[in-house]
Amino acid sequence: MDEDIRGLLEGIKDGTVSVEEALLELKKKPFEDIGYAKVDMHRKLRQGAAEVIYGAGKTPQQITGIADVMRRNGQNTILITRLSKESSEIVTKTHPMQYFEEARCGVIGEIPKASGLGRIVVATGGTSDVPVAEEAAVTATVLGNEVVRLYDVGVAGLHRTLAHLDDIMNANVIIAIAGMEGALASVIGGLADCPVIAVPTSVGYGASFHGLSALLSMLNSCASGVSVVNIDNGFGAGYLASMINHPKR
Amino acid sequence: MDEDIRGLLEGIKDGTVSVEEALLELKKKPFEDIGYAKVDMHRKLRQGAAEVIYGAGKTPQQITGIADVMRRNGQNTILITRLSKESSEIVTKTHPMQYFEEARCGVIGEIPKASGLGRIVVATGGTSDVPVAEEAAVTATVLGNEVVRLYDVGVAGLHRTLAHLDDIMNANVIIAIAGMEGALASVIGGLADCPVIAVPTSVGYGASFHGLSALLSMLNSCASGVSVVNIDNGFGAGYLASMINHPKR
Amino acid sequence: MDEDIRGLLEGIKDGTVSVEEALLELKKKPFEDIGYAKVDMHRKLRQGAAEVIYGAGKTPQQITGIADVMRRNGQNTILITRLSKESSEIVTKTHPMQYFEEARCGVIGEIPKASGLGRIVVATGGTSDVPVAEEAAVTATVLGNEVVRLYDVGVAGLHRTLAHLDDIMNANVIIAIAGMEGALASVIGGLADCPVIAVPTSVGYGASFHGLSALLSMLNSCASGVSVVNIDNGFGAGYLASMINHPKR
Amino acid sequence: MDEDIRGLLEGIKDGTVSVEEALLELKKKPFEDIGYAKVDMHRKLRQGAAEVIYGAGKTPQQITGIADVMRRNGQNTILITRLSKESSEIVTKTHPMQYFEEARCGVIGEIPKASGLGRIVVATGGTSDVPVAEEAAVTATVLGNEVVRLYDVGVAGLHRTLAHLDDIMNANVIIAIAGMEGALASVIGGLADCPVIAVPTSVGYGASFHGLSALLSMLNSCASGVSVVNIDNGFGAGYLASMINHPKR
Amino acid sequence: MDEDIRGLLEGIKDGTVSVEEALLELKKKPFEDIGYAKVDMHRKLRQGAAEVIYGAGKTPQQITGIADVMRRNGQNTILITRLSKESSEIVTKTHPMQYFEEARCGVIGEIPKASGLGRIVVATGGTSDVPVAEEAAVTATVLGNEVVRLYDVGVAGLHRTLAHLDDIMNANVIIAIAGMEGALASVIGGLADCPVIAVPTSVGYGASFHGLSALLSMLNSCASGVSVVNIDNGFGAGYLASMINHPKR
Amino acid sequence: MDEDIRGLLEGIKDGTVSVEEALLELKKKPFEDIGYAKVDMHRKLRQGAAEVIYGAGKTPQQITGIADVMRRNGQNTILITRLSKESSEIVTKTHPMQYFEEARCGVIGEIPKASGLGRIVVATGGTSDVPVAEEAAVTATVLGNEVVRLYDVGVAGLHRTLAHLDDIMNANVIIAIAGMEGALASVIGGLADCPVIAVPTSVGYGASFHGLSALLSMLNSCASGVSVVNIDNGFGAGYLASMINHPKR
Amino acid sequence: MDEDIRGLLEGIKDGTVSVEEALLELKKKPFEDIGYAKVDMHRKLRQGAAEVIYGAGKTPQQITGIADVMRRNGQNTILITRLSKESSEIVTKTHPMQYFEEARCGVIGEIPKASGLGRIVVATGGTSDVPVAEEAAVTATVLGNEVVRLYDVGVAGLHRTLAHLDDIMNANVIIAIAGMEGALASVIGGLADCPVIAVPTSVGYGASFHGLSALLSMLNSCASGVSVVNIDNGFGAGYLASMINHPKR
Amino acid sequence: MDEDIRGLLEGIKDGTVSVEEALLELKKKPFEDIGYAKVDMHRKLRQGAAEVIYGAGKTPQQITGIADVMRRNGQNTILITRLSKESSEIVTKTHPMQYFEEARCGVIGEIPKASGLGRIVVATGGTSDVPVAEEAAVTATVLGNEVVRLYDVGVAGLHRTLAHLDDIMNANVIIAIAGMEGALASVIGGLADCPVIAVPTSVGYGASFHGLSALLSMLNSCASGVSVVNIDNGFGAGYLASMINHPKR
Repeated sequence: MDEDIRGLLEGIKDGTVSVEEALLELKKKPFEDIGYAKVDMHRKLRQGAAEVIYGAGKTPQQITGIADVMRRNGQNTILITRLSKESSEIVTKTHPMQYFEEARCGVIGEIPKASGLGRIVVATGGTSDVPVAEEAAVTATVLGNEVVRLYDVGVAGLHRTLAHLDDIMNANVIIAIAGMEGALASVIGGLADCPVIAVPTSVGYGASFHGLSALLSMLNSCASGVSVVNIDNGFGAGYLASMINHPKR
Repeated sequence: MDEDIRGLLEGIKDGTVSVEEALLELKKKPFEDIGYAKVDMHRKLRQGAAEVIYGAGKTPQQITGIADVMRRNGQNTILITRLSKESSEIVTKTHPMQYFEEARCGVIGEIPKASGLGRIVVATGGTSDVPVAEEAAVTATVLGNEVVRLYDVGVAGLHRTLAHLDDIMNANVIIAIAGMEGALASVIGGLADCPVIAVPTSVGYGASFHGLSALLSMLNSCASGVSVVNIDNGFGAGYLASMINHPKR
Repeated sequence: MDEDIRGLLEGIKDGTVSVEEALLELKKKPFEDIGYAKVDMHRKLRQGAAEVIYGAGKTPQQITGIADVMRRNGQNTILITRLSKESSEIVTKTHPMQYFEEARCGVIGEIPKASGLGRIVVATGGTSDVPVAEEAAVTATVLGNEVVRLYDVGVAGLHRTLAHLDDIMNANVIIAIAGMEGALASVIGGLADCPVIAVPTSVGYGASFHGLSALLSMLNSCASGVSVVNIDNGFGAGYLASMINHPKR
Repeated sequence: MDEDIRGLLEGIKDGTVSVEEALLELKKKPFEDIGYAKVDMHRKLRQGAAEVIYGAGKTPQQITGIADVMRRNGQNTILITRLSKESSEIVTKTHPMQYFEEARCGVIGEIPKASGLGRIVVATGGTSDVPVAEEAAVTATVLGNEVVRLYDVGVAGLHRTLAHLDDIMNANVIIAIAGMEGALASVIGGLADCPVIAVPTSVGYGASFHGLSALLSMLNSCASGVSVVNIDNGFGAGYLASMINHPKR
Repeated sequence: MDEDIRGLLEGIKDGTVSVEEALLELKKKPFEDIGYAKVDMHRKLRQGAAEVIYGAGKTPQQITGIADVMRRNGQNTILITRLSKESSEIVTKTHPMQYFEEARCGVIGEIPKASGLGRIVVATGGTSDVPVAEEAAVTATVLGNEVVRLYDVGVAGLHRTLAHLDDIMNANVIIAIAGMEGALASVIGGLADCPVIAVPTSVGYGASFHGLSALLSMLNSCASGVSVVNIDNGFGAGYLASMINHPKR
Repeated sequence: MDEDIRGLLEGIKDGTVSVEEALLELKKKPFEDIGYAKVDMHRKLRQGAAEVIYGAGKTPQQITGIADVMRRNGQNTILITRLSKESSEIVTKTHPMQYFEEARCGVIGEIPKASGLGRIVVATGGTSDVPVAEEAAVTATVLGNEVVRLYDVGVAGLHRTLAHLDDIMNANVIIAIAGMEGALASVIGGLADCPVIAVPTSVGYGASFHGLSALLSMLNSCASGVSVVNIDNGFGAGYLASMINHPKR
Repeated sequence: MDEDIRGLLEGIKDGTVSVEEALLELKKKPFEDIGYAKVDMHRKLRQGAAEVIYGAGKTPQQITGIADVMRRNGQNTILITRLSKESSEIVTKTHPMQYFEEARCGVIGEIPKASGLGRIVVATGGTSDVPVAEEAAVTATVLGNEVVRLYDVGVAGLHRTLAHLDDIMNANVIIAIAGMEGALASVIGGLADCPVIAVPTSVGYGASFHGLSALLSMLNSCASGVSVVNIDNGFGAGYLASMINHPKR
Repeated sequence: MDEDIRGLLEGIKDGTVSVEEALLELKKKPFEDIGYAKVDMHRKLRQGAAEVIYGAGKTPQQITGIADVMRRNGQNTILITRLSKESSEIVTKTHPMQYFEEARCGVIGEIPKASGLGRIVVATGGTSDVPVAEEAAVTATVLGNEVVRLYDVGVAGLHRTLAHLDDIMNANVIIAIAGMEGALASVIGGLADCPVIAVPTSVGYGASFHGLSALLSMLNSCASGVSVVNIDNGFGAGYLASMINHPKR
């Protein structure tokens, strides 16, 4: 945004932009207002990766409208998260998409080839954590990363975790997803030598308190290099993992 | 207690005990009231093990008085928990004792030889958990058990845990003590094939919330055979471990 | 697992196993991967007892598949917990089973004769706690234990608890199940001289906060020998009780 | 207060009170403002019982001043709660008092003879609950009640509770005081046939969370006739017990 | 129960009861076991008042069965709480009852004439609290009390509360029922000179956290003579109010 | 109300009102009781603004009845909040109204022209917060205020907030509505120089805990001039904003 | 700030400011960086009122330094909150100040004459709330408001509240400060017809949970026109009250 | 660790290592046990960066001992966190160190030159957050990173944040540290295009609940690319930032 401001200031200095125009510009520029949403145009990543629509609470019509604006502005790939199968079937008529049912994600346009420094491992403690993991994995894939899935490697069966030691040791970023006691993040954090993004899930019952137990456990991890995102936030983990795997310089 | 009631009832039937006496007896019998405390006389374990005084909030004089009653009633070994060094130095004058500083426990009388089915392993995640572990270990020892200590084997350094696989596989009961994320209980629970008693500790800061994080984590353990006692309750874990290691029949 | 590693190491030494094979073996051995689940093969208990499938969130087809693998690996008895009546009717077609409706458990194969040191008492505070109790009782039975049920013996009607003093005094392990104020664990813990496994239930309303009240109450029990498992975790209590009732040596 | 308003209204009607005076009176009457406190004059109970000063956070000088106003207004007996020994020694110079150290209460003037319908039983789970119990007992005594103390009758040693069945069955009101798991209220509530006032205490550690565990437990009591006051609120329990024991008609 | 024990003991002494019979009696006597429930027979109040069935989670058939036992044991009046309209229509076929829809209570047999020392006032903060209030009011009525209803007198419209000052000043017990901020209990507690039983309700949204806000508020009431029961526990408040209004002597 | 009391007192003095009448009047006056509700008549604002019916939990018939009384008492404009579309269609038959679907509000009678000192800005962090915002906006409009809507200006896209700097700087009161992290209140509070009313919303998932996260965040705002109302309480914010925008003098 | 940006832009257009200078200016202008603090220069209120230093955690030397910068920039009056008596005695040597001990506030320079629309009432439930009230009162006074103090008017003694009905009815803003059950805000909110700013305090014990009880209670107030600030935040309430009392136009 | 295991396996195969030796090695190798601590030897980062001692709860003698082992094993640079000034003065005698007082960190040996991809920005909301920030900054520096400090740039003074737009836009990783409402992470996350590590601090009072408010706020951040570590965990943030800034490949 700094560049934009500087450009605007230069324009004023040159006399090519009036003060009133500049103030106006400042207000209108970085998004397009289509009534029910303000569509951002400035978040393009360096690799020409996907723009994202958070689908929760949006009608298929609204999603279609936002996608219209994005395509019109030259966006090739669009990721829609928290998208129901029903909605996807309506949107796909005007914007053909691939729909990933378990991840509840749709992708309009081409999925870019994997770039980035290395691989992103997505690991889960149990099978119930898989939908969150798929949201993370699809997100990372669409943003241009090679993804390795290690599902059901929970610490109560430690041999399962250890059986994948190679993948863990070779990852550039690891997303560790678990509900209940959330110990997976600590164990993987202790084995790996790369950033570990921990995702607590709301899987469980009783004293799991809808993910609170896993959340606190992960925040208290004794392993260095572990950080935490919101409960069930697979998208956030995938997005951050991609950022780490695609450093600026 | 059933036997006592039956005996009393038989006595009434035989006419050797009057109804009034029986009622009186029922009220007076199983403890001795010394004003500031009601000293129980009926908790003797089958192995002739120790009676216990919970020292927190009692003056050295009160502890001495309770010990007096216990010794007078034929108790050989007395364990005093949560006992400060200062108090121990006063009590020891009349009731010579061994004082275990890290465990904050004193033992009057002889420590019995180890009996029971097998060994009790006491494991901690970090060094800060050791005082709770020592309370558990001294308790189990005084109650007649062989104790193996595995300290600082936290899961963030998994190789430390695995290095003691033999001890873990050979234990009859394991006490897993950890603060912060409390993952130790799950990892050990997954490796062992004996009951695991998990003790959350108040060690940690921030989102550990004085042991809440470890407590919830342990309650949600995916490993079978794990149960939990109160935060920092080393005594309770040691006592229960001894019970499991000394089955009735 | 230690034995497996040692065996593998010996094999490498003997030249009968290559390093690559060993690494491969380490990864593949203790479970069979059938896509939607990794089926463990190593948890067999000493008494040839049942293997367990946690049915929650699994389709009847998935359960059938897991049972296939287990049977193929020689498992006689399989316990399926958290299994709906509808699912049981599908699975039973290929794997005939007994279905316990209140416990929501199915058992494939023969239920073993009771072994172990003594009896396991399963007690509840009220009638609403019975489903959790049945999960515990069926689990313990399938794992080869004699089970005594004491239902609706809550402490607000103390005479009901005392009426079963014999059973309580004679038990080898007691599972105390209660919602609301959870006092049952303390009262039974004070009467019994064996390990008491407390199971808080989510029964209640208002300030019971879905089992939190009973959970905290049980963790704070003044009675020695009491430990706690997760809210509504009947299976966990039954499994642990069986472990205590079947010591290794 | 109703009577006062009615009197004032009659006075206006009779012309003996002007409207301005009435409004003024309404504002000035029911308390005396001495700067640091507004001393109420209208709370006299029917039995001529004591007025109360909540001593916490008040200097001895302030307490002396409030007592001055009360005595000047004809109050015979004054109860001062949460009063330190040091403060009591200063106040006693001008207002001779009996000081109850464990209860941390002082009483100026005569303690009235016990009146009321019957006896108030004050029971505690452990010895650490005694200071709260003494606050309740002294309060009830000063308000004109016969008090029976049953200390250290916690439910983990049920025989202790049962030994006092007579006292429990014969009470008119029972105050059940306990920390930790707070089960005492339920057990006594199940045995008694009179109102039970439960007082959770902050005694305990770990998952007692400063009395929260006992509070929730008591609120969830399955026994009918049990109600709860604030954690450690011995005074409130004693005051309410006296009210119940001294019905209006 | 004390009388029963004494009677039994006398019987043994007289030789009219054998020890075995006594032990048996002790176990069988105070309740009748009908499989799905243990029906208590000993809770009869001095005024010949109603016995109570807690209807939640019981089928109409179970309720009918319990009522059968009670009637057979000579119980005239039976109160069934938390009873749905549908269930009431089935039970009423064999046990004709009056059904109170807002209170969700059914009454089999005659409602006794009001006895007791005075009147019980049932007050609510808003109209949404009325169902809880009606449960309290019907309970108190069925237990033989005169009940005065003061609904929608919340403190945000203080004039509504004050308009009923007479009723408040003349009550023998007051039940103050409110959700949201729960201030009603304090205001009424400050005006009244009789016991106030506060019932927090789960009415509200947002930061009311399903009654937690009102619960904490009521526990912290600065007014003396206030105690609290569980959230939405209208029955408990009505039962306790009746106990206070019908003292033993 | 003060004036009423004074008037009544003068009447008594003049002999035009008897004491009994006065007491009666005091009780009956400020509201009309129509059985299911006590309709307040005294809350009229100085600008002749709207009276309010809280529609949640009221039947269309009850709402119609309350509106009847209000109209009969001369109220021109009536705002009904938390009103479903279905209910509005019934009420509108006897009391024609405008229905605002997103706000879930109905308005009977004329919406007054905007008065007050300046403009009220209603800003939201995201589009999911709009229903709460509309409740606030409609409330403020009906109470006679000019309202400016700034929706979807969340701080994660700071340029959106800054684009509306003029509106923010020129507002007389700002209502800042946000779920999730609730940072909008602080950012706007730092930019504006007028009172900011923060409304946390229950929008979000996981660690938003139904609005708790936004609530705590807003209470901790470092910006001066920010205060907070209950989660999702759009009406409360709109009402308070109108009060601030219409000072008494 | 808008004006500043516009000015800067005009300057660039006029050629009196270079683009580099403008960018530099933008970064340097609105505050002065003195190492340990960034001193804001732009928060001047319309009435030439005081600038504020939050004293908590600052050394007397740091406070002196900040005050130096402020005075140098032409600030006449400076309010220092959360200032200990000891610190005040050091700062006063270079910046003579009035120190308000109970409020823990110091004021450098002249206290402005009261301006604004009307009076601000500061009311407390008890005497322990007075320090928070004084912080609010001193803040409001220093910002140019007439303040009326109503202390110890808690709702458990409703006559005290009502005795000050005139002050409450005549206020332009009311600050209602209370701990424990926090009912004061609702009662005053119901009586007043102006904005009420509720301040929960951490006064209390047990289930007050350090102000949580009062906080929730106040957020749930049924009275319209009530909003809430952080626990013990007297300054925030005083500042907001002044803002409301000094509308822009 | 994988390499070690592979090496060991190869050794066995080659006959250069016996099975017993291998098992022994596995247990002894990766750490050195010095009684009070197990010193890890395997965490060396690729850049030859520092090894870390967590100083909290360790005596100066223990720290010295651990440092001895590390130096003996060839470690050049050692970072000691949570180290008091007093302890540092003792350790420095045998292991000369630089002590960073505000960060409470000591560094033995040389601080490496900055390497890595780019710069790490450490930003705080207020001055009270600086100690946590310094812990992060010193950690990152010692691990070989260029660090830019932006302190006191809280969002309530947005111009301060914006004044540093260049630094924010040019960072490779940003550590955003804030207490109270924790909004800084969202605002910076919205401006930056690199990973943001959010550190909640326990700074604040009242409803900040020792960092809980900031923690929840940060977990709910709407900005993509934000993750969270434990409250006050400056070291964890610095360590993770360094990992991200030093990718493997």
